[in-house]
Amino acid sequence: MMRTRPLKVALLGCGVVGSEVARIMTTHADDLAARIGAPVELAGVAVRRPDKVRGGVPAELITTDATALVKRGDIDVVVEVIGGIEPARTLITTAFEHGASVVSANKALLAQDGASLYAAAEQHGQDLYYEAAVAGAIPLIRPLRESLAGDKINRVMGIVNGTTNFILDKMDSTGAGYQEALDEATALGYAEADPTADVEGFDAAAKAAILAGIAFHTRVRLDDVYREGMTEVTAADFASAKQMGCTIKLLAICERAADGGSVTARVHPAMIPLSHPLASVREAYNAVFVEAEAAGQLMFYGPGAGGSPTASAVLGDVVAVCRNRLNEATGPGESAYTQLPVSSMGEVVTRYHISLDVADKPGVLAQVATVFAEHGVSIDTVRQQGKDGEASLVVVTHRAPDAALSGTVEALRKLDTVRGVASIMRVEGE
Amino acid sequence: MMRTRPLKVALLGCGVVGSEVARIMTTHADDLAARIGAPVELAGVAVRRPDKVRGGVPAELITTDATALVKRGDIDVVVEVIGGIEPARTLITTAFEHGASVVSANKALLAQDGASLYAAAEQHGQDLYYEAAVAGAIPLIRPLRESLAGDKINRVMGIVNGTTNFILDKMDSTGAGYQEALDEATALGYAEADPTADVEGFDAAAKAAILAGIAFHTRVRLDDVYREGMTEVTAADFASAKQMGCTIKLLAICERAADGGSVTARVHPAMIPLSHPLASVREAYNAVFVEAEAAGQLMFYGPGAGGSPTASAVLGDVVAVCRNRLNEATGPGESAYTQLPVSSMGEVVTRYHISLDVADKPGVLAQVATVFAEHGVSIDTVRQQGKDGEASLVVVTHRAPDAALSGTVEALRKLDTVRGVASIMRVEGE
Repeated sequence: MMRTRPLKVALLGCGVVGSEVARIMTTHADDLAARIGAPVELAGVAVRRPDKVRGGVPAELITTDATALVKRGDIDVVVEVIGGIEPARTLITTAFEHGASVVSANKALLAQDGASLYAAAEQHGQDLYYEAAVAGAIPLIRPLRESLAGDKINRVMGIVNGTTNFILDKMDSTGAGYQEALDEATALGYAEADPTADVEGFDAAAKAAILAGIAFHTRVRLDDVYREGMTEVTAADFASAKQMGCTIKLLAICERAADGGSVTARVHPAMIPLSHPLASVREAYNAVFVEAEAAGQLMFYGPGAGGSPTASAVLGDVVAVCRNRLNEATGPGESAYTQLPVSSMGEVVTRYHISLDVADKPGVLAQVATVFAEHGVSIDTVRQQGKDGEASLVVVTHRAPDAALSGTVEALRKLDTVRGVASIMRVEGE
Repeated sequence: MMRTRPLKVALLGCGVVGSEVARIMTTHADDLAARIGAPVELAGVAVRRPDKVRGGVPAELITTDATALVKRGDIDVVVEVIGGIEPARTLITTAFEHGASVVSANKALLAQDGASLYAAAEQHGQDLYYEAAVAGAIPLIRPLRESLAGDKINRVMGIVNGTTNFILDKMDSTGAGYQEALDEATALGYAEADPTADVEGFDAAAKAAILAGIAFHTRVRLDDVYREGMTEVTAADFASAKQMGCTIKLLAICERAADGGSVTARVHPAMIPLSHPLASVREAYNAVFVEAEAAGQLMFYGPGAGGSPTASAVLGDVVAVCRNRLNEATGPGESAYTQLPVSSMGEVVTRYHISLDVADKPGVLAQVATVFAEHGVSIDTVRQQGKDGEASLVVVTHRAPDAALSGTVEALRKLDTVRGVASIMRVEGE
C-alpha cells in the first residue's frame, strides 16, 4: 500500500544540475513514487538569483532564503547542489537540525569536512548521501560502501576529472601540446574559463580524499592528498609514453600500504600501459579501477559530469533516503573504524620514467647509474639517444619509494654531465 | 555502541564459493563486525558430502540436514550457494518462513521463480539479495536497483558469461576455430566438461532475465529470453568482423522498445565495433554496459565468476542484510510496477551482417537486393567476392525488425542463384 502524504524535497541551487533534478522529479514523478513507495514532491527551490531559474520550476516554489527553507521542519530531504564550502556547510547542518536528511554533490565540502557532517547527521538521526560528489553518474560510492562491504579494498585508481581527461586524450590522439588541447577543451565547453581547479588537480584531489576514506574505512582529508597538476605534460612526454606502449592520464590513486598499516592518496599525471582498462577511457569520460582482495579487479565507467548524469546520481540517492525514511531507518553512516594513518608521498612505492638531457661523452651513463644505485633505486631499462652533441637518457626504474626517487633526481641535477631533467613521470597500472 | 549478540549466518553449500564465504567470515570477522555494527558468526554449514568440506570449517558446524538448519529459528541470514532449482527453492522459502533473510547466488532459480521468492520474502518480512547471481563480483544488481533508482534505464547490454568470452577472445586473437578454443578453455579450467549451459547461452539467458526485470521494473522470466548459442561462430565470421572493424561477443541484451511500451531480452553472438567499450573485454572477464536516460552510458567491469569474487558479492549482501536487521528494516523488494509486456525476438530491431554463397553470374546482386527490398530490409553495404566460379556476397543492413530479416533469409534460400547462407550475425553497439 502506498502512503499518500508525499515526501518533501528542498532543492538548494538550481543551476545545471539542480534544474535537471527539478525537471526529472516532475516528469518522472510516477516512477519515483512507485520506486519509493510514496509520492515525492518538490517543496521549495532556493536560488541566489530568482530571475535566472530554468527548467520550468513553478514560481511559487522559488525562494532566495535558503536558511528559511531548510528550517521549515516539514522537509524530508534537502538536495544541496550549490557547491563550495559556505553557505553549503551551514545549510546542511541546519537541515539535519531541523529533521531533514541531505543528498549532496559537494565534493569540496565532503573532502574537507566529511567527518563533521557525518557526525551531525548521526546526532540528528539523518542520512547523508553523496553519490554525485565523485564521478558524476557512475555508481561508485554505493558499490564501495555497500557492495564491497564484505571485501578488503587495496587500491582505487581512477580518472575522476573529465576536463583533464579530455585534454590528455586530445594530446594523445592529435600530438597537440597542452595549451592547444586546453584551448580546444575551453572552446567546446569542457574546460571552464579558469581551469585551475581541474588542471592543477584540486578537483581530483577532493574526490581522492572521499574515495580513500570510504575504501579504507578511515578519515582522509583533502590536505592528506598529494597533488600534482598536468599543466607540464608535453607532447614529448606522450611520445616517450608511446615508445613504452603507454599513454598518460591524470590519475587519483588511493592505496593501502603493502604492510596494511597505512594508506596513501595522491593525484598526478602518470604513464599507464595501453593494455590497462583505464588507458582506453576517452574524451571527458571518467572511470575508476578498484582492486579488492576477494573481488579482484573491477572497473566503473561513465560520464563524470554534466547536468543530467549528476542529476541521475542525486535522484538515486533521493530514492534511497526516502525509502530509509519510510522504513524509519538510516543508511550506512561514516565508517572510519580502521583509523589508518595517511602516509606522505615519500612513502609511496611506484615506478618512474625519467628523461635526462646529458653531455654526449663516455662515462655519463656510468655516472648516472651510480647515482640511482646510491639512492637504492634499481634501474629497469635505459635508452640513450644522441642529438647534435647533446644526448638524452631515458631511465625507467623498478619500484622504489618516492622519497628515494626525489633524492636521486636532486643528486642527478648536481652532476655537471647532466644538463637538465626534462621530465619525471610515474608509471602505474602494471 | 556495538551490540554483542552475534548475527547468525547459515551456509547452504560449501564448494568453491561457499568455502570462500566461510573463510572470509572467519579471517575478516572483525572488519565485518565493524561494518555491520554487530558481530556475525557462521552458525552452520549444510553440505551433501561432509568428507569433502574444505577451507577449515569447524567439524561441529557441518550438517547434512539443510532443512533442519534453515528451520532452527535462530538464523538471521541463510546464504544459498547450492545452485539449481531444488532443493534450493524449498530451502529458501523455508528459511523465510522461519524468520531468516536470504542471500543467494542462484541465477537459474531467480530467473525462473524470482517473483514467487520475492513474494515469500515480503510475506515474512525478510530480505532477498542476490548480487552474486549476475556477473560475479561486479556490483551490478545494487547499482541498477538503487543507484539508478531515480533514472530510466533504456538498455542493458553485457558480456555475462566468462567461459564464452574466453573462447571468443581466443578465436579473435589467435584465429582458432570454435572447437580448438573450447578445448583450450576446458584444459585451463574455464569451461566445464559439459559446456552446454555456457556455450548454448542458457547461463547468460538466466542473467538476462534477471537484469531485464530489474532494469525495467517488470517481470521477465527465463522463457521470455530469446537465446542463441555461440557454437556456430567460425573463424570466417571473425575475419568478416575484422573487415568491418568489429569483433564478436556473446551478448545479453535487454532493451526497452522505442515506443516504451514493451521490452525484449535476448542472448546471441553479435558483432560489435572495436571502439565499443565491450569489445576490449578480454579472457573470462565480464562487463555490462548500461544506457540510462539521464546517466548516459555506464559500464561495469570485473571477474564474472570464481570462488573469491563470488564470495565478495555474497558477503556484501550479507553485510547489507545484517544492517537491515539491526535497523529492523528490509531493503528494496521486487519492483515490477511497470508490468511492461515482453515482446518476442521478431520485434527486436537491429542491424545484420549476412554472408551468402552465390552463383558467380550477372544479375545475382539485383536478385538478392530485390528480396531485401521486398521484405522492407534496407541494405547499408554489399561486398562481392569471386572465388573459383563461386562468389560470396556480404550484405550489411540498416536497422530492421528481426522478423523482417528472417523473412528475407527464408526467401533468399529459395533463390536458385543462392547456394547457401553461410552466416547471419547481428551487429550491435553502434
